Amino acid sequence: MTMSSQPAPSQNEKSAGAFGGVIPPLITPLTPTGALDTGSLRAVIERMIDAGVHGVFALGSTGEVAFFEDAMREEILTSVVEIVAGRVPIFAGVIDMQTRRVVEHIRRAEEAGVDALVATAPFYAITGPQEVEHHFRALRDSTALALFAYDIPVCVHTKLAPDLLVRLGTEHIITGVKDSSGDDVSFRRLVAMNQANGNPLAVFTGHEVVVDGAFLAGADGCVPGLGNVDPAGYVRLYEAYRRGDWQAMRSEQDRIAALFEIVFAPVGKTGPAAGVGAFKTALQLMGLIAANTMSSPMTALDGENVERIRQILQRQEMLPS
Amino acid sequence: MTMSSQPAPSQNEKSAGAFGGVIPPLITPLTPTGALDTGSLRAVIERMIDAGVHGVFALGSTGEVAFFEDAMREEILTSVVEIVAGRVPIFAGVIDMQTRRVVEHIRRAEEAGVDALVATAPFYAITGPQEVEHHFRALRDSTALALFAYDIPVCVHTKLAPDLLVRLGTEHIITGVKDSSGDDVSFRRLVAMNQANGNPLAVFTGHEVVVDGAFLAGADGCVPGLGNVDPAGYVRLYEAYRRGDWQAMRSEQDRIAALFEIVFAPVGKTGPAAGVGAFKTALQLMGLIAANTMSSPMTALDGENVERIRQILQRQEMLPS
Amino acid sequence: MTMSSQPAPSQNEKSAGAFGGVIPPLITPLTPTGALDTGSLRAVIERMIDAGVHGVFALGSTGEVAFFEDAMREEILTSVVEIVAGRVPIFAGVIDMQTRRVVEHIRRAEEAGVDALVATAPFYAITGPQEVEHHFRALRDSTALALFAYDIPVCVHTKLAPDLLVRLGTEHIITGVKDSSGDDVSFRRLVAMNQANGNPLAVFTGHEVVVDGAFLAGADGCVPGLGNVDPAGYVRLYEAYRRGDWQAMRSEQDRIAALFEIVFAPVGKTGPAAGVGAFKTALQLMGLIAANTMSSPMTALDGENVERIRQILQRQEMLPS
Amino acid sequence: MTMSSQPAPSQNEKSAGAFGGVIPPLITPLTPTGALDTGSLRAVIERMIDAGVHGVFALGSTGEVAFFEDAMREEILTSVVEIVAGRVPIFAGVIDMQTRRVVEHIRRAEEAGVDALVATAPFYAITGPQEVEHHFRALRDSTALALFAYDIPVCVHTKLAPDLLVRLGTEHIITGVKDSSGDDVSFRRLVAMNQANGNPLAVFTGHEVVVDGAFLAGADGCVPGLGNVDPAGYVRLYEAYRRGDWQAMRSEQDRIAALFEIVFAPVGKTGPAAGVGAFKTALQLMGLIAANTMSSPMTALDGENVERIRQILQRQEMLPS
Repeated sequence: MTMSSQPAPSQNEKSAGAFGGVIPPLITPLTPTGALDTGSLRAVIERMIDAGVHGVFALGSTGEVAFFEDAMREEILTSVVEIVAGRVPIFAGVIDMQTRRVVEHIRRAEEAGVDALVATAPFYAITGPQEVEHHFRALRDSTALALFAYDIPVCVHTKLAPDLLVRLGTEHIITGVKDSSGDDVSFRRLVAMNQANGNPLAVFTGHEVVVDGAFLAGADGCVPGLGNVDPAGYVRLYEAYRRGDWQAMRSEQDRIAALFEIVFAPVGKTGPAAGVGAFKTALQLMGLIAANTMSSPMTALDGENVERIRQILQRQEMLPS
Repeated sequence: MTMSSQPAPSQNEKSAGAFGGVIPPLITPLTPTGALDTGSLRAVIERMIDAGVHGVFALGSTGEVAFFEDAMREEILTSVVEIVAGRVPIFAGVIDMQTRRVVEHIRRAEEAGVDALVATAPFYAITGPQEVEHHFRALRDSTALALFAYDIPVCVHTKLAPDLLVRLGTEHIITGVKDSSGDDVSFRRLVAMNQANGNPLAVFTGHEVVVDGAFLAGADGCVPGLGNVDPAGYVRLYEAYRRGDWQAMRSEQDRIAALFEIVFAPVGKTGPAAGVGAFKTALQLMGLIAANTMSSPMTALDGENVERIRQILQRQEMLPS
Repeated sequence: MTMSSQPAPSQNEKSAGAFGGVIPPLITPLTPTGALDTGSLRAVIERMIDAGVHGVFALGSTGEVAFFEDAMREEILTSVVEIVAGRVPIFAGVIDMQTRRVVEHIRRAEEAGVDALVATAPFYAITGPQEVEHHFRALRDSTALALFAYDIPVCVHTKLAPDLLVRLGTEHIITGVKDSSGDDVSFRRLVAMNQANGNPLAVFTGHEVVVDGAFLAGADGCVPGLGNVDPAGYVRLYEAYRRGDWQAMRSEQDRIAALFEIVFAPVGKTGPAAGVGAFKTALQLMGLIAANTMSSPMTALDGENVERIRQILQRQEMLPS
Repeated sequence: MTMSSQPAPSQNEKSAGAFGGVIPPLITPLTPTGALDTGSLRAVIERMIDAGVHGVFALGSTGEVAFFEDAMREEILTSVVEIVAGRVPIFAGVIDMQTRRVVEHIRRAEEAGVDALVATAPFYAITGPQEVEHHFRALRDSTALALFAYDIPVCVHTKLAPDLLVRLGTEHIITGVKDSSGDDVSFRRLVAMNQANGNPLAVFTGHEVVVDGAFLAGADGCVPGLGNVDPAGYVRLYEAYRRGDWQAMRSEQDRIAALFEIVFAPVGKTGPAAGVGAFKTALQLMGLIAANTMSSPMTALDGENVERIRQILQRQEMLPS
């Protein structure tokens, strides 16, 4: 793997300005035996596109990418590309513990026909800023597609520093950032440094309930897991932002925040088993997906946990009457 | 120490609605030998009041409370009360590792004549939610003054849960919250739960560069350390918020955020030695305080660290020409 | 506070070699209303001295120092000095968040007549190695007593580096270290660096169940909280170590480790409410102290938690028949 | 993937008692261009076997498994099996972020002909104890080989609880534990619970400088990365332990601990770039491997970092004269 430092941006690489808006990270509906439920996936995606989303992000943390082997990842990407059919850009997570494996996922994502890639820092091994930078440079050397850095320290235990990210943007190594750090001071600094350098990066927030604040801070887009459950709400929020109607934006965010309480409802579960489990359970209760099955070794929410989610959905008028 | 659970609110206790706006946490100017520099303190406070702040917060983390023994704390409070002279409400930090010591600080703060108290969870000892709740109930039993819970996990290593805080508010145990957790999802949930319960709490953010987002989320006030350096900026930000001029609010925040880079300028320092050190150094460079002396065992910024701060101030047009 | 860097060791300062062996950190028995129960304290101390301990450590974490105000700390020290009556050296915790307060505790401990002091790094405020070093130098400037650095990152969130500690020992700033870091690699390095520099430090472990390993690594002493419950066991362990009977040492440690399970027995409690609560409950069940009352805002163990501890004591044959 | 809970142990599964002693985690020597250097690998392994090690562990953290894609992992295993040629048992790391990928690695390790497998909890995704248990049960369902749980929270950010591990041992789900948690209290409890349940588990420590303490606590074996540099030292340590010569054991450990300082020597590096980098640099200086090349995106130690390691080796008389 060569690591030449500044490749010329290729012809077909889209620039940062091509990406923005509401880009929900797709859940991955499963049949009760754990196979991909493409019918349910289609229902989720069609509803998103009807709602006006500006892209979809397959194989993110919300998509349970951490639980899928290569063949399943490939099947999911192929299905998403087929269903979306060019109507909105497709981002693909190429999440893995080390550079060479990420390059393999990039190859498959290119073959599937996605529009942009989303990669984290290496994980498991403890690395420093030097290794992280080499990693992203090696990924850039392997592809001409748009490449987003995924800042998610809760999973990879490395925080991507704003100055490193902006420098990588200026050198055309990365096209943008998906910030799921929950560190809004760092996010504000990232946006400010990006602007001061001519906006080389498209900057997305991974927040669900502070998306209005992220837009206020200058975010170009949002990638909310809750966008699976209420894509129209996030599109309204974004449109209010675009037309400068801040009051409408925050009202929409407040409504959405009340809905987000579903992820705090499950008792005795943690991580995606609770959060993604809540999204899937809500979609099942709303009649959009057939089952709330989770990837092994997680198990689906049931009993009181489902009932608590049903009550929140009812209170927020998200259930068909 | 008795712990009766729901005291009737006393006659002189101000309700949550009495507090809000911009309440900077005062730095504590020191002479080169480490004594309180009341002249510099007066200059800082007068400039704040001229700028239109809605209160001041003495003996917070920014005030280096963690480095002052009882006599010095008392001297600071007495000076602040004398200088402010009733023009704005005074909040006093009563920060200590355990309940009884906090009660002692409360007694002295009452005697000094402050308007509200700010207390953290116990620290050093590991405690659970039960102990934290008992702690705040015991503090309430000891005073009729307004009492704010200070949520600052980076210092006390306990996060105060939104539902506990709102419950304590509903029972008149606490009057408000100063949230320095940096966890904006939790802050949004706190504001939402507070509203759903009739706003028993005044909710303040400790942010410096995401204050606009906190107001958007429904904060009642802000307690920005950088308000020592630029109180007028925060007042303009708050006034823009109050009149619904969101565009002006975010522009002001962006300008302030560029100024906040002074706290990232010091090399080889961490914690308050860097952050509070940067505030003091800026105020000295601006001619407002006589020295940038820090409390022992910290040392003042010097050399290149001062020069980097000077350059940021110059770029942000904060230096007298 | 001046900070001259290398004071000449005073005449009455004991050297590191004067300290070692088994030095249990004393629990603080309380009456049901929270007052000091000197009768129970006497029973605990007399049993320790009968067992052959080589010192006692008052006002440590096990002594609930984090919950006591100055007057109570003073009362405890006075009682301990009176009860011990010179039979073994007394270590006093001078635990507080900042240098000047620690100096005040040192003054009172000197007046009470203790033999050695135990101080942590500053806490609450985030500090770096420079501030930690200044802190210990300032403490040394304030007293001629033996001074031990207390390395307890779980409480103060700063790890004391072995090379700093040995350097402070070589310069006669500190006399020894009580290592409660749980980091046995760091402990081994500390012992090795200390030996390579002529053993300026007395090095104690705060472990309860890896004390044999610490002696193997070269520890001079141990400060086990469980020594309140079974002082004779730790003395046997130490004596086996001194005579080179490693097999007896590990057998004793294995027996003690089974007894230590009492601290994992409490359900729904954390920190000292569980651990110190278990020690007090055991001592009450064994008939040595009158009540298992904990310092406010903690509450005493009761119900099933007491029963689980009773069963472990019974299995370990620690209950009177 | 089915998850039947208690498979009958297969005929060819070795029991826990079959494993123990010194089992170094093999470094992976690389040519300057990053290919496997089988000549250097052979030299390292032959020296280990000559020294009397009781097994080798390929593809552990020390083996840079976190940086190798599937083909390279396969090449390494094949080479190790060929070189070892049945003289000692071979453990293979099957480290990956999720269950199905680990099962794939298990399949390849079986085909390569190893004797035992070493697997961590899932990582990247946050999981709870329920998911961790399901994960190990699923791994057991996929293989009849001996299966070791690798407790390495610094990499996977999950601590494996002693009671869970012993329960999985009792049910023949796992054969043993490699404990790299650095939590020696937990390790002691694991050993004690294991003994109380009839020793279903072989328990190994991942320590380098507290191996004597781990044996004292009852460890069955050690897996020291430094065993690449000084296998004979660890074998002497183990043999001293086996014959009950505790004094010889600790002396050997003290000597080895001084050698381990090489991993603290590199400046400006962290994680395996420092630690494994130090092992490789030492082996190169000692003339055992051809290059100290590290897996991309890490870079090899050079300049002053190499010189500092050389000096430690010289002081410890590890360099050929």
